[in-house]
Amino acid sequence: MTRSIAIERTAAPKTKPDEKQLGFGKYFTDHMFILDYDEGLGWHDARIVPYQPIQLDPAAKVFHYGQTVFEGLKAYRTNDGRILLFRPRKNIERMNRSNDRMSIPPIDEELFMEALTKLIELDRDWVPSEPGTSLYVRPFVISTEPFLGVSPSRSYRFMIILSPVGAYYEEGIHPVSIHVESHYVRAVAGGVGTAKTAGNYAAGLKAQEGAARRGYTQVLWLDGVHRKYIEEVGSMNVFFRIGDTIVTPALNGSILEGITRDSVLELLRHWNLNVEQRAVSIDEIIEAQRSGALREAFGTGTAAVISPIGELSWQGEAYVIGGGKTGELTKRLYDSLTGIQFGADPDPFGWMYELK
Amino acid sequence: MTRSIAIERTAAPKTKPDEKQLGFGKYFTDHMFILDYDEGLGWHDARIVPYQPIQLDPAAKVFHYGQTVFEGLKAYRTNDGRILLFRPRKNIERMNRSNDRMSIPPIDEELFMEALTKLIELDRDWVPSEPGTSLYVRPFVISTEPFLGVSPSRSYRFMIILSPVGAYYEEGIHPVSIHVESHYVRAVAGGVGTAKTAGNYAAGLKAQEGAARRGYTQVLWLDGVHRKYIEEVGSMNVFFRIGDTIVTPALNGSILEGITRDSVLELLRHWNLNVEQRAVSIDEIIEAQRSGALREAFGTGTAAVISPIGELSWQGEAYVIGGGKTGELTKRLYDSLTGIQFGADPDPFGWMYELK
Ligand SMILES: Cc1ncc(COP(=O)(O)O)c(C=O)c1O
Ligand SMILES: Cc1ncc(COP(=O)(O)O)c(C=O)c1O
Repeated sequence: MTRSIAIERTAAPKTKPDEKQLGFGKYFTDHMFILDYDEGLGWHDARIVPYQPIQLDPAAKVFHYGQTVFEGLKAYRTNDGRILLFRPRKNIERMNRSNDRMSIPPIDEELFMEALTKLIELDRDWVPSEPGTSLYVRPFVISTEPFLGVSPSRSYRFMIILSPVGAYYEEGIHPVSIHVESHYVRAVAGGVGTAKTAGNYAAGLKAQEGAARRGYTQVLWLDGVHRKYIEEVGSMNVFFRIGDTIVTPALNGSILEGITRDSVLELLRHWNLNVEQRAVSIDEIIEAQRSGALREAFGTGTAAVISPIGELSWQGEAYVIGGGKTGELTKRLYDSLTGIQFGADPDPFGWMYELK
Repeated sequence: MTRSIAIERTAAPKTKPDEKQLGFGKYFTDHMFILDYDEGLGWHDARIVPYQPIQLDPAAKVFHYGQTVFEGLKAYRTNDGRILLFRPRKNIERMNRSNDRMSIPPIDEELFMEALTKLIELDRDWVPSEPGTSLYVRPFVISTEPFLGVSPSRSYRFMIILSPVGAYYEEGIHPVSIHVESHYVRAVAGGVGTAKTAGNYAAGLKAQEGAARRGYTQVLWLDGVHRKYIEEVGSMNVFFRIGDTIVTPALNGSILEGITRDSVLELLRHWNLNVEQRAVSIDEIIEAQRSGALREAFGTGTAAVISPIGELSWQGEAYVIGGGKTGELTKRLYDSLTGIQFGADPDPFGWMYELK
């Protein structure tokens, strides 16, 4: 199959932001990728164009019925100036699984990969090099048909935009405090919790605001059926080290299959540690905490990579985990993953994809 | 409080579509209403402008995290040429409840009402007069901040668009066949099922496609916890006539509080009929069907007003309700509601709002 991606370069490159003040998701590079879909035609007109606003009919389905999916991955600059992508094929596969769940036609994986690499190569000067910084890559699909019937759209737009982002931990990795949510629910088996689709994130905002008001960084979600099994934390999967075992919720049909989660599982197995993917109730965690068996807790996700959990609040009580410090295994995972991602360490699993 | 809505009239009015071929949500009128929100400024710049595409940054939050709400109501043309809105205040109130659930700032109810009436009055020639036709009114809010952090947007756009729509039943009211969904779930208590927000509709598409493939018009959703209590049907609430009682699922925290549902309840009480709002399991309905006690079933919603259910498919069996014909009470409700809506009958409840 021959593919061609038309490229229109910007005539007015933007001034790049200060690499020490990037934050997350605020700045965008000079170009973006677009691929359109129309019923009958399929996906067509792959092109890279200057980053610019898009025009949509006010009746476009995305505004009304939220038929959309997205992905998130990062490109890292190595000390010697190369650019590495972390497991991009995994994101491409997951996006097509999300597409399937949301009744959006699949995207050719080779074209997707080519779009990703071509776009980042064109904007390669935007991949920052300050310690801990990276280029966040956001592929997404929106439904564009101007029709108010509740049915799958007959036209879509797939785009990739790029955002240089700051170090997640400005002063080195440090633990966060998490509120265990007992009232609101994010997703339920049979729903769309396994898909990276817009509605899941809108559904979490209210609880997140409540947690923030109480001084917590994120929400830990419990399942919607029994209201006791742990699901995930904000935009992260979650792990607990109980005694000599590392436990994480199984892929039960309502949580996202995180790529960092998968990588952590591989590392732990590689290190010959005990790992269990199973249902974990909040009661089990509180009990392990009370008995002293709960040694570490951490979240995993593209944004923070590994996020130590120093405190859990549950039913009005605050539980300080591991003395509120970053645990030893948590730190080892963070160092190992970021070492591979930034190309400082060898890549025994073949995770990194080097750009030209 | 003084409000002012700036009006920019179109210089190029569109040709109106054939009133006999309107369908639903395909054609839009000459104008639309816009109101913007920015943190610090609040809602500002109320204006009516020619219907046209809108421009958004590709990073606008609506594309990624689905923070959005909408409403749907109808304006009806009476035989003597007047234009009536059905219970618009109810939609305005419900939208602000949806806004609250989705962390969107509330909209001034008087300004909303003024926007609604001014816009329809300007496009009054678009309210069709063929039997059964009406003007569908779609208010909606989208989150517009170009920022990829998962947090409530700091800017929004509220819009109202208008679409002349055809008679729902081209050849008079007739029953539909409904598939009872056992695998997929629409919403769960603690989630956003009570809000009219985009993600709820995207979440239903996959099941709807499956039902359509099997020849069914819509999906009847069961609850996500026990997987047996009846929730709603597509974009409708649902009622059953069992013996001498009319039963409908209670507002349990996962279904939409339908305005047609509320109106049907008022009519039934007005007629001194037995009504129960409570949990209704699919087993109860199947049993009532087997024993002959299930006399009628129907959906209620703005689009179809009343939609008789002639068949339910559940676990591979098809159950024909009331001989597959429109029931007597179903018909009476349809005639009464549409009689009031089109101004053919008196309006004892003060439901209709007449436009200038
Ligand atoms: C809901 C949710 N869970 C978990 C994750 C972690 O997934 P990944 O490790 O692929 O970034 C993310 C972020 O991508 C997410 O949005
Ligand atoms: C999910 C859902 N349920 C029920 C309804 C019926 O509500 P109403 O009678 O207000 O149109 C609608 C449509 O508005 C809906 O979208």
